[in-house]
Amino acid sequence: MRRIGALIFPGFELLDLFGPMEMFGLLDDKFKLCLVAETPSKVTSNQRLAAYAEHGIEEGDAYDILFVPGGAGTRREVDNPTLTQWIAQVSAQAEYTLSVCTGSALLARAGVLNGRKATTNKAAFSWVAEQGPKVMWQRQARWVEDGPFITSSGVSAGMDMTLGAIALMHGQETACDVARWCEYTWHEDKAHDPFAQLHGLV
Amino acid sequence: MRRIGALIFPGFELLDLFGPMEMFGLLDDKFKLCLVAETPSKVTSNQRLAAYAEHGIEEGDAYDILFVPGGAGTRREVDNPTLTQWIAQVSAQAEYTLSVCTGSALLARAGVLNGRKATTNKAAFSWVAEQGPKVMWQRQARWVEDGPFITSSGVSAGMDMTLGAIALMHGQETACDVARWCEYTWHEDKAHDPFAQLHGLV
Repeated sequence: MRRIGALIFPGFELLDLFGPMEMFGLLDDKFKLCLVAETPSKVTSNQRLAAYAEHGIEEGDAYDILFVPGGAGTRREVDNPTLTQWIAQVSAQAEYTLSVCTGSALLARAGVLNGRKATTNKAAFSWVAEQGPKVMWQRQARWVEDGPFITSSGVSAGMDMTLGAIALMHGQETACDVARWCEYTWHEDKAHDPFAQLHGLV
Repeated sequence: MRRIGALIFPGFELLDLFGPMEMFGLLDDKFKLCLVAETPSKVTSNQRLAAYAEHGIEEGDAYDILFVPGGAGTRREVDNPTLTQWIAQVSAQAEYTLSVCTGSALLARAGVLNGRKATTNKAAFSWVAEQGPKVMWQRQARWVEDGPFITSSGVSAGMDMTLGAIALMHGQETACDVARWCEYTWHEDKAHDPFAQLHGLV
């Protein structure tokens, strides 16, 4: 059983978080989901609906998987050392660190992606790349795996990445079971990224 | 500006709700999202993470769009007359009524789908169909539009339906803008449903 610490902050992107949580959550014998915020509280998303974080970062818990969504709130949180220091500390102890969309900007500012390949939302690419000059940013990728770091492109790419992560941990068949249960057509090829071209990155 | 009342109850399915809310929520000049529960409260999903409903059904508010997700909790809520009566009342005044997955079982028990075409999750098809003997259940459809009622197949089909609903209300270009922003490959053909065959329905 792996414990997932999913960080949320004001202005997180709903689908960045809840697409992956749906898929991990269906395997409730394999993953335990925890929402973590600066303090345990109601946290308002970019779409203004609120989720509830039962855990606070001051608890100092370790997690097997650190998960960081994106959203407009990342533009503020990159300058929040309380959050980026917590990310660095939890990531160092975690087996895997995952991000969706501009969540990789937070990982970059925490310093954990230095020298690693990573990706992000293609519509926000240049801003995210500025947050981590030592990161090997990939301009065209649905998601990128580099050792324990798995980073996805924008919003719905998080679901494809999550199925990829489930396949890494539990095999392709389990990932396909989850996709079928969700009636989701998995984009299995992590190199296939039509959105890079749509946003003029290639 | 249309006000969406999205009903949540214990055991709602995360992605049924938050995939569509992501997409409607990106058009914040066109849609206002409200989570509604029996009482304003923290409501725990089927994946055990909690969302927060700011509104209660006893407020008696009208909504332009009624949205009902599915999830394991629907198995209990079909026998909750407080909820099904509220659905019937709000649906009668709404411009559109939408459901995802087994959410259509709640609409069926509320009686609002009688004589209408509708669909649901293909893995739960027979149970849902039993909840509404007078509904013209469609065994193969990504989503179904019948007058003001738009019902989708399982979980991730809710996102395709939502883009279809956005196209109905604001045109195809707006729907495609939302899909591109989410880096989502929209399955535009509402009749294309490979999951019906996977679950032996055709």
